[in-house]
Order: sequence, then C-alpha cells, then structure tokens
Amino acid sequence: MSDLHSLFNPDSIAVIGASNNKEKIGFVIMENIQNSGFQGKVYPVNPREKEILGYTCYTSIGKIGQPVDVAVISVPAQLSLDVARECGESGVKFLVVVTAGFKEIGDEGLKREKELLKICRQHKMRMVGPNVVGIMDTHTPANASFAEGFPKQGEIAFISQSGAMLLAIFDWSRSVGLGFSRFVSMGNKADLNEVDFIWSAAQDPNTRVILCYIEDVADGKRFLDVVSEACKKKPVIILKSGTSQAGARAASSHTGALAGSDLAYDTAFRQCGVIRAETMSDLFDLAVAFVSQPIPAGNHVAIVTNSGGPGIIATDSVERNGLRMARFGKDTIETLRNALPAEANLYNPVDVLGDARTDRYSVSLEAVLADENTDCALVLLSPAAVTEPVKTAQVISSLRERFTKKPIFAAYMGGEGLAEGCQVLTNSGVPCFTFPEPALKSFSGMVRFAALQRKLARGQQLPKINNIDQRAVKATFYDVLKERRLVLLGNEATSVAEAYGIPVAPVRLATSPEEAAELADKLGYPAVLKVASPKIMHKTDVGGVKIGLETRDEVMEGYHAIMNSVRRLMPGTPIYGIEVQKMMPKGDELIIGMSRDVQFGPLLAFGLGGIYVNLLKDVSFRLAAGLTLEEIEEMIAETKAYSLIRGYRGSKPADIGALVQTLARVARLSLDFPEITEIDLNPVIAYPDSAVALDVKITVSYDENEV
Amino acid sequence: MSDLHSLFNPDSIAVIGASNNKEKIGFVIMENIQNSGFQGKVYPVNPREKEILGYTCYTSIGKIGQPVDVAVISVPAQLSLDVARECGESGVKFLVVVTAGFKEIGDEGLKREKELLKICRQHKMRMVGPNVVGIMDTHTPANASFAEGFPKQGEIAFISQSGAMLLAIFDWSRSVGLGFSRFVSMGNKADLNEVDFIWSAAQDPNTRVILCYIEDVADGKRFLDVVSEACKKKPVIILKSGTSQAGARAASSHTGALAGSDLAYDTAFRQCGVIRAETMSDLFDLAVAFVSQPIPAGNHVAIVTNSGGPGIIATDSVERNGLRMARFGKDTIETLRNALPAEANLYNPVDVLGDARTDRYSVSLEAVLADENTDCALVLLSPAAVTEPVKTAQVISSLRERFTKKPIFAAYMGGEGLAEGCQVLTNSGVPCFTFPEPALKSFSGMVRFAALQRKLARGQQLPKINNIDQRAVKATFYDVLKERRLVLLGNEATSVAEAYGIPVAPVRLATSPEEAAELADKLGYPAVLKVASPKIMHKTDVGGVKIGLETRDEVMEGYHAIMNSVRRLMPGTPIYGIEVQKMMPKGDELIIGMSRDVQFGPLLAFGLGGIYVNLLKDVSFRLAAGLTLEEIEEMIAETKAYSLIRGYRGSKPADIGALVQTLARVARLSLDFPEITEIDLNPVIAYPDSAVALDVKITVSYDENEV
Repeated sequence: MSDLHSLFNPDSIAVIGASNNKEKIGFVIMENIQNSGFQGKVYPVNPREKEILGYTCYTSIGKIGQPVDVAVISVPAQLSLDVARECGESGVKFLVVVTAGFKEIGDEGLKREKELLKICRQHKMRMVGPNVVGIMDTHTPANASFAEGFPKQGEIAFISQSGAMLLAIFDWSRSVGLGFSRFVSMGNKADLNEVDFIWSAAQDPNTRVILCYIEDVADGKRFLDVVSEACKKKPVIILKSGTSQAGARAASSHTGALAGSDLAYDTAFRQCGVIRAETMSDLFDLAVAFVSQPIPAGNHVAIVTNSGGPGIIATDSVERNGLRMARFGKDTIETLRNALPAEANLYNPVDVLGDARTDRYSVSLEAVLADENTDCALVLLSPAAVTEPVKTAQVISSLRERFTKKPIFAAYMGGEGLAEGCQVLTNSGVPCFTFPEPALKSFSGMVRFAALQRKLARGQQLPKINNIDQRAVKATFYDVLKERRLVLLGNEATSVAEAYGIPVAPVRLATSPEEAAELADKLGYPAVLKVASPKIMHKTDVGGVKIGLETRDEVMEGYHAIMNSVRRLMPGTPIYGIEVQKMMPKGDELIIGMSRDVQFGPLLAFGLGGIYVNLLKDVSFRLAAGLTLEEIEEMIAETKAYSLIRGYRGSKPADIGALVQTLARVARLSLDFPEITEIDLNPVIAYPDSAVALDVKITVSYDENEV
Repeated sequence: MSDLHSLFNPDSIAVIGASNNKEKIGFVIMENIQNSGFQGKVYPVNPREKEILGYTCYTSIGKIGQPVDVAVISVPAQLSLDVARECGESGVKFLVVVTAGFKEIGDEGLKREKELLKICRQHKMRMVGPNVVGIMDTHTPANASFAEGFPKQGEIAFISQSGAMLLAIFDWSRSVGLGFSRFVSMGNKADLNEVDFIWSAAQDPNTRVILCYIEDVADGKRFLDVVSEACKKKPVIILKSGTSQAGARAASSHTGALAGSDLAYDTAFRQCGVIRAETMSDLFDLAVAFVSQPIPAGNHVAIVTNSGGPGIIATDSVERNGLRMARFGKDTIETLRNALPAEANLYNPVDVLGDARTDRYSVSLEAVLADENTDCALVLLSPAAVTEPVKTAQVISSLRERFTKKPIFAAYMGGEGLAEGCQVLTNSGVPCFTFPEPALKSFSGMVRFAALQRKLARGQQLPKINNIDQRAVKATFYDVLKERRLVLLGNEATSVAEAYGIPVAPVRLATSPEEAAELADKLGYPAVLKVASPKIMHKTDVGGVKIGLETRDEVMEGYHAIMNSVRRLMPGTPIYGIEVQKMMPKGDELIIGMSRDVQFGPLLAFGLGGIYVNLLKDVSFRLAAGLTLEEIEEMIAETKAYSLIRGYRGSKPADIGALVQTLARVARLSLDFPEITEIDLNPVIAYPDSAVALDVKITVSYDENEV
C-alpha cells in the first residue's frame, strides 16, 4: 500500500489557480488553508497575482523551487493536463484535483481523465479526484478544500464519493457538534480510491472510526484484501447507495461507474467485516456509538427506565435488532430490591417508577452494569414532576467512566426540559436519543463488529484441497474454446467437476444404442439417458430424457426413442449422442452454484435445490476470494436447508463435510479458471455419507475484460 | 357505541380532591382547567377548602346542585369508591379517575377496580381509567389532566395506554411545535378503552389523524368491528408494544393484561386497515404526513435534487419501502430539458445540479408535479454556494398549495444554514427532514392507507357457503365432550370436516381385519391404514401406519402387523381400531390451519405444507371474523406456495377456488364452534380440479373463559 502520510500531513501545499477574487474557488481554498491553522508552507500559484492572503504568489509550480507535498489544482479543465505535467516535473507528491470536467461529463472528459492519470503515473504522483471538494485533516491541521469552515476536531474519518454529500454532512455535523479527524472527497477516483483512504485512515492514530459513503468500489479484489485488514484495526462503516434496481441506474448515470450487483457488495462487506449502514441516520448513529463507546463483550442489554411503556418499546427493539435482554444475577436483584420501592420492577427492564429521582437511577444503573450478564446498558428517562434529568445525566456520565468496558446509551424522551441533561450526556460521551430504538440499532452494529473481532481472534483456516487436476480441465476447455461454445456439454462439465474432485454422478457419452447399454452395465442400473446437444436447453420438453431404465434392452430402446423424438421435434439440431448416467437414490435436494461478479469475482451460492430454488430463494452467498473453512460452514448453517440436512424429524444428518468440500472445490475451480462465468450443481443430493451432484452446468465467457 | 361528546366537550367539570396546595395533583388539575381557557362551569370539591383559583369549592359532589358532565377524581384510592358512588348518585356522566392503586398494584387493587366499575355500571356512568394522567381537548378547549401545560391546537388525536408515554410525547411535541386535537390517557381501561376513544376521535370534526400507543387490546371482537369502521373515515396509526417475547413479558408485568400473540395483532391491524408504526419516530412521522398531506392516488415518487448522491440514496429508499420511481411523460422531459443546463439529469431523480438557485427547483418541481405519473414529490436540497434554502422553501410551499392532491416532502440535508428554510416548509405543511429516508417511509404508510381506501371503495363480499350440517358436528362432539378428550380421533375429525363440506380423503374406522378389507374395497386402492388411539401422537414411530396396500389380503396383513407392533411397543395403550383411507395421488402439499387467539378469535393459516411447514414457514394469516372472499384470495396469493399452485414450470394450475372454499369453511366451522382451539389440515393436496386434505387434526378445549 502506498503511504498517504504526506497527503494528510503535508509540509507544503501549493494551490494552482489560487485567486484574490473572493467569488473564486481558488480564493476559498487559500482562505481555508490559512484559517485551518496549517503550519507548513503555502504556495499560491497564479501568473496574474503577486500575493494572496499574505502568501507570495508564483507564476508557475516550477518557479517555487522548493519541495511541494500537495498541489491543489483549481484551474479550468482544459489547462489541467499542462498544470499536472508541470507538477510532475517539479516533483510534487500528491495532486488534489478540484477541477471538474472529466469522466462525469462523458467521452471527452473520460479521455482527459485517462491522460491525467497517465501523467500521474509517469511522474509517480498520486492523485485525489478529479472533481473533488478536497481533503481536510483536523489534527494536522489542514483544510485543502473549498468547503466553507472547518470541522470540529474528533476521531471520525469521513470518506465520500459524492462531494455534495460531503458538504451536506460537513454542514450538518457542525450544527450537531460532531467531531471529525478527516474529510475526504474522492470524486471520480481515477487514481486513489476508497481502498487507499480506508487503509490510510486505519493507520492514522487520530482516527478511531472510518465512515464511508460510496456508490461503487473501484477494484473489488483490492477492496477485499485491504479492507478486511483495515477492519481488524478499526470499525469501518459504509453507506453504499445504488442498492435498488432504480438506484443502480441513478448511480451509473451519476458517476459512470459500472456498479456490481448489490448482493455481491453485501457479501463482500460482510466477509471483510465492514458494518453496512442502511440509512444516513444509521451511518452517523453508528459512528457516534463506535467513537464514544467501548466494544461490547456480548449482546445482552440491561434497561433502566422510569416508566413502563418506553421500557416495553425498548424491549421490543432489543429483540428486533437481534439482541438479548440481560438476565440479572441474584445479587443484582437483591441490590435492586433493597434500593427500590416495593412496586418497582426489579427484572429487566428495571422500572424505577415515575417518582424516581437520581438516587434510584444511580443505584440501579450501577447494579446492572456491575452484573456480569450485562454487556450494555440503556437508560430511559421520561419527564415527570420529580425527575432530575441533569443530575441523572451526571450520574450516568460518572458510571460511564467507571464501567469502561460496557457501552451505555440513553434516551431522554421529551422536549426542552430535557435538553440540558441530554447535552451533559453527549458531552461526556454517552449517546443520547429522543426515542429508544436508534440506540439499540446502534448497539446492534457494535455487537456485529465485536463478533467479527472474536472470529478474527479465533483465527481462520483455509480449506484443505488435494487431488486437483488442472491439466484435465485445460484439456476439456481446449475443445470448448476452440468451438467458441458458451455452455459445456454434460459430459464435459462432469469431467471438469471430476478433475477438481467435485462429486458428480458420472455421465458418459454414447453414440450408439449398444455403447449406451455397455456404459449402463458399467455405471449400474437403473439408468438415465439424456440427449447431448449444445442447442437443447429443456431436454424433457422434447422427449430427450428417459429415466428408471432397468435393463440393457430398455436402455437401447430408450436410445432410439430419444433420437426419434428429438429428430422429429427439432429436426436439423446437432446431436452429439446420448449421455448415460446411473439414477441416484432420493435425498435432500440442494444447490451449489457460482456466478462471477464483475467487481468481486466468483460469488458462491448454497441452498435448497430442485424446484424450490426459484420459489423459495433459500440461498446464502459468499465470495470465493480468501474464503475460509469457517465461512463455508457458516454459509451452510445460515440457510433454512441446514435444518433439513442436519437431521429433520429423526432422519439421519447429511454429510456436511462433503458439502463443505464441494463448496471449497467449486471456489477453487472458479478462481483458477476466470473464464468460467457460472457453475450450477443442481440438484446436489445430500446423503448421510456423501453428497453427489446429479447435474452440472458450466458456462464460460470470452470477454477478456471480464476474465 | 356510546357517545363521548360530553366527555371531550363538557359543559361542566368537577374536580374531586381539588386543592390549593401547589404540590398536589388536585391543584395542578384545577390550574390546567383554568389555563386551558375552558368556557364551562368548574366545580372544585374539597371539604377543607372554600375557594380554589377563584372557583367556589364544594364539600361534596352532591352539594353542587347542578348537572356535572365530567368529574375528575384525584383522592386517595381508599376514598375513591365512596366518591364514585356519590358521583353516580348526583348524576355525573363521566368519571376521569386519576387516582392510582387499582389493578396495577395486584389483587387488592383489582378488587377495588372491579367494585369501581360496578358502581359506574349501576349509575350508568362511563369512566376513563383508573390510573390516568387525564384528558385534553384543544378545540373545546379543556385540560382535565395533571400534565403541565397545554398542547398546541392541531388535528392529531393521541390516545395512550401509558401515562408516562403520554407525558413524554406531550413534552416532546411542544418542543417541536406539533399540534394536537386531543390527548387521552387510558390507564387501566376498566371501562372505556381504545375502541371507544378511537371511535370518538373518528367522529370528532377536529381530528384528522388518530394515533395510539397500546400494550394490548381490551376486547378483540369489538376492536375488529369498530376500528375497521373508524379506518374508513380517518387514518388510525398504532404503535403496539410487546411485539417481542421478552417485550410481551414486560407488558404483562406492567399492565397485568393478557396480551394476545403479536401475530394476531398484526393480522387484526392489517384486516381493520390500521397503519402499524414500527418505532416511535415512525408513529410521529406518519402522523405529520397524514395531517399535512393529501392521500396519494398511487405509489410513484418524483425526486428533485441538487446533488447526485442524496438522489441515489432516496431512490434506494423508494424501492426499499415498496414504492416506485415515477416515469415522466415526454412533455415533462421536454419542459425540464428547456429549463435546465445540459448536464442536468432530466429523468427521475431530476438533478438540477449543485449550482441550482430557486428557479431550477421551481420549474422542475412544477413540471414533475404536473406529470400524471407522479403521485408524490420529494425535494432534496444540500447546501452549496448559491443554494437558496428559504426562497426554495417558499416556492415548494406555493406548489404545495397548487397541487392539492399530491403529497410533497422535503429533506434539507445540512445544518444551521438550512434551519430557516426547513421552518418555512414545516409551517406551510410540507414535512421537512434532515435525511431522505424517513420521508419515504412515511409516504409508504400513506400508500398503504390509500390502497385500503380503494379496497373498501370496491366493496367486499362474504364467501358463500352452503350445505353445512351443524347437527352432525354436534353429534360428533357429544362423544368427545363426554369423554373430556382434547384431540378428536381421525375419523371424528374427518366427519366434522365432512359435515362442513371441507374436502377430506375419507377415513373409516375398522375394528377387525375383515372390516378393514371391506372398507378398503369400498374406498378404493391403494389403501392406507393408521392406528386409531387417543394416546399415540407419532403413529409412524410405533409401526402404526401402512401405506400403498394394493389388495384385500395386504390390508388384512397390514391390520395384524400394526396391531402387533403397537401392542409390543406401547403395551396397554387403548386402541380404538384401525383407520382405513384411500391413498391419494401426489400433488402440491399445502397446509390450512386455525388456531384460536385469546383476543381476536380464530386465526387462519395457509401455506406450504408437508415437512416444509416448520422449515420454511411460508404461511399467511387472517382472522376468521368478518373474513371476506377478497381477503381469502389475498391470503393465498401472498404466499410463496402461490407461485407453485398457480402453475409452475408448465405444470397445470391447482384449483384455487377449492382452496378458497376450504378456507372459508374452516373459518365458518371455527366461528360456529368456539370449543375448537386448533384445526390442522396437513397436507392438503391441491389438484387441478380439486383440493383434498389427507389428514385432519382437531383440538378442543374446556376452558369456558376461552370459548
């Protein structure tokens, strides 16, 4: 990974296109650099100015004669290439190209953008943008952007593909007093993209939480490699838009980016350990939770409330977010019983009653936090005559300091009268909401992150795969590629699968009734016959399939019957012969499949097979890249099919190890042969001591860009 | 329905327990009545006071000597019964019992509450409470509560089971400037409950939207009857807590109410036309949407934005909320093309670009609102140098007035700089959010309401059912009841089903091998035999089932085999004989069932049957009460099983009419015989020309309270 230290902590910044005209972006950038308190050197560049805001102005970047870490370019698009070249020649390390008029405006712009990138590569410069608002670092401090003002210092890095989004969040964050370590506007991401900025923020000692808004990922493979490492260090929270069909269209008209399917994104994020935010509110609620609260040890919530209704609502929300209510130990209950009135509810949610002052909150919250079954506490306060919102907030804050390993959230449910108390909480690092539900949604994001950290701590194994025959696959593909066929024949697909140790019911191709009978003798009865033709997709519909053939004679008759039927219904269709297979006994029908995502590569699928695939859509997904044994096991366990195969109503459990191996081998095959675009094993029959695919379909592609 | 007009619009209010001591609730209530501007007569009652806040004080309610519409009771619980009796004797119409110490404190309180209700009944008084905050009506105006202050006048009625919730919302609403027509605290709901208050609010000319927070429904049947009528008049939005297992426990410890299962609530709400809110934020977002926006004609959203990112996020949210993006007509596109810069996106979401002033918003919003494909518009505004948030808000407001049939929402994404514009929108009745997602969630609630109104306008039919033999069912139940059995034998259940025209594979009981063979001859081959015993649940496990018997001899052999196996494995078990059935051909396996909910009565289920019932949980539900033909059809259509039975991959569609009839008949049977607690038809095999239940299980109960 390239080091972006001097981008965010530069010794010197040049502004090309700097201006004394206050209407110009070149002036706003200069003013921002100055107002941010930047301690390094500042070089405005503009042939028509002598001095800007007290800084000596240069006629060109070449005239500075000093090393320049960052050059902000804010000149018309037509001039940008020349300016970039000069920067390269002068040894500038980083460009921040504010100038618009590149990929986002169409072909002409795309050409200019490619040229710009070429210049950067030639001179080993790295580039932010083009078409960006700029970057800010509150700890350096530096504000090399045209966003008016400077954020409050904090520990959240915000990385945005949309400049408007960055400006909106920047504006909003200042009004709610949220602090940031960095703001990064990525623009068209011609060079540096989310992977670089996430990695850099992961190294940054001043950043604790990494927030991203993205519309696509520039390089899926690098994203998987790097972001999964970043997630081991810090929470990475991403709002990825374009999840809808309609949204994806809007995204691609906006950035011209080829968006991968949302399912692949979702899978990639989960596999990397990224916490995905659903809405903009969630993104910031999560950021606040992660930046202010410790990572919880488990998912058990204790609730302390002064009224029943909100307590029930919060309890509902605990369950809805996949969390659990803490069950308190005897000591806790005893402490509560001694401290609270007889009518109080001592069990979770603890109801300290409407006439509670601070003392009851204090003793209850302390007791439940001290309980080892509590991983997180939520304090609910509704206004009543004797309620002490500020004093109670102070107590919560001091308990926050004492119990350093358990997150605490509050919901102060009311209006103006509670505002001061809420402010006390916020200032001391306890997120305070108006209603309880968002607190639990945020906590649930923290629990997901904690689970990931534990999984990483346990260590993960890559599945062991032996006995792979790549040469056999290559030999099979030789014919397919030569004939430019997109779909492998049944016996070809079977031999590819067999070469990778994927268990398939053997299929052999017969070109005469006698050969079919001999193959049936060898493979065993009852036999199945299927017509072999690259042109026939739905074989049953044309009488191309015969099942349950018990004898040589039946096989030979079947051969003739299929040939007659297909020749009659599809005259002139090329027929390669008849595939012979042994009919397998019944068992649970599953599907194992792969489809290649343009961003993230092979995406594996596992679930209920047979006719239920499309009907019930009980399928789980994982990306093949870096797939561990544990992930494969999880993938199987999270389907409904799992309750079927692990033994349902007294039936014997299926051989799950065989399914794991099959998935691992399909993953390996897909990674080894990028020309494979789709694999379908459907159905895979799971038996107590094995798993066998009855049908294998393999599709390939010749688009070199997709390989 | 009783008329609550004089409760909310009283000519006179007495306050029993009124006080001059400012610490006492009896004082706060007096002060609230006075400050609310109540125009009627006010009679404080307290033997130790002469005058309170300028009103003459009476020693007892009997001494007033004038008619009293509403008496607010705020005396210690021990005195409350005597006070209530005096009120009754003096002809008081309504009691508002603020006093606590009733059902919520346990047995002693419950006894007192029952006595209080008895007094009310004796004197034909109606009662709010006990254990309430009180009631307010901003249009009367009257504030007969101890909530400090008075809400802003508006058109939202808020009805709350939790007093603390009411106080919290009351407090919060004043800080955000939300107006209300009424606040009602229901407390223990000993007499008047949500049904009465919802109905009253539905009649109230000053109420446009009815909001409820409830923890249970007091009378399910009345709720279904009355609230479904109320929903025809006005939107009824309910936040029902206790949805979780854990939440339900908290609810019942809180109110002592026996909560029905959440599934039944969900079904009841949907069938009545209630819009259910998921969270507290949703409840109020929906209220604001309904009170300020017209009911939309469809679900197509037009978005106008000055930045791409937020536009994509809003587009995602459109899809996530089950809404559609509007496709604009040619004229609209032409208007936009003429008015906007070349780089603007003319298609939905319309991007007027970052340098847009008010004029671009104005022309674009007008154009998309004028488009007949638009049902609703969402305006997104992010801060940029030339953005005009206030002026743009004024334009949106004026378009809001012109386009009276289309809801408009706004999201002003930023901080302080946008606050004034946001206020302009709010004041003119355009809901303005910080982020786009809640706007679309609210709109989706409106769309659901609109769909319901259209459904009601189309009219609904009750299913036609002929040929029901109640006497045959009674005759069968006679034996079951006499033996106090909970589960009907197979042949009993079958005869009950047959009596109601529910198609079942006939089952006959044989008590000898010869009789079994004769029955098999009569019913047809292949035959199925099953042991008949009230004690054997899993018949297969004890060798109690034989299938596919083709001849008389096989049937007789099977008879012996079953008897031997069962006697050996379960010696001493009572065996009634062997049930004989014809084996049916294969088909799609469905389930049709009923379980009786304690609140709402029979709850019907339909879905995938066989082993998939528990695995896949593809089941839809409806309450039998008032179930229409259209609802039954919807019920079938909303399952995944539907795509199977309507013809899957070229297979013939099943007889859906037969399934509709079966569901209608199961509903009728369940309503006619309240002792039936559960019915299971599993599997029901659906054929192209019929549907037949292969197995019928009927369970009864003897708990008279449940009937």
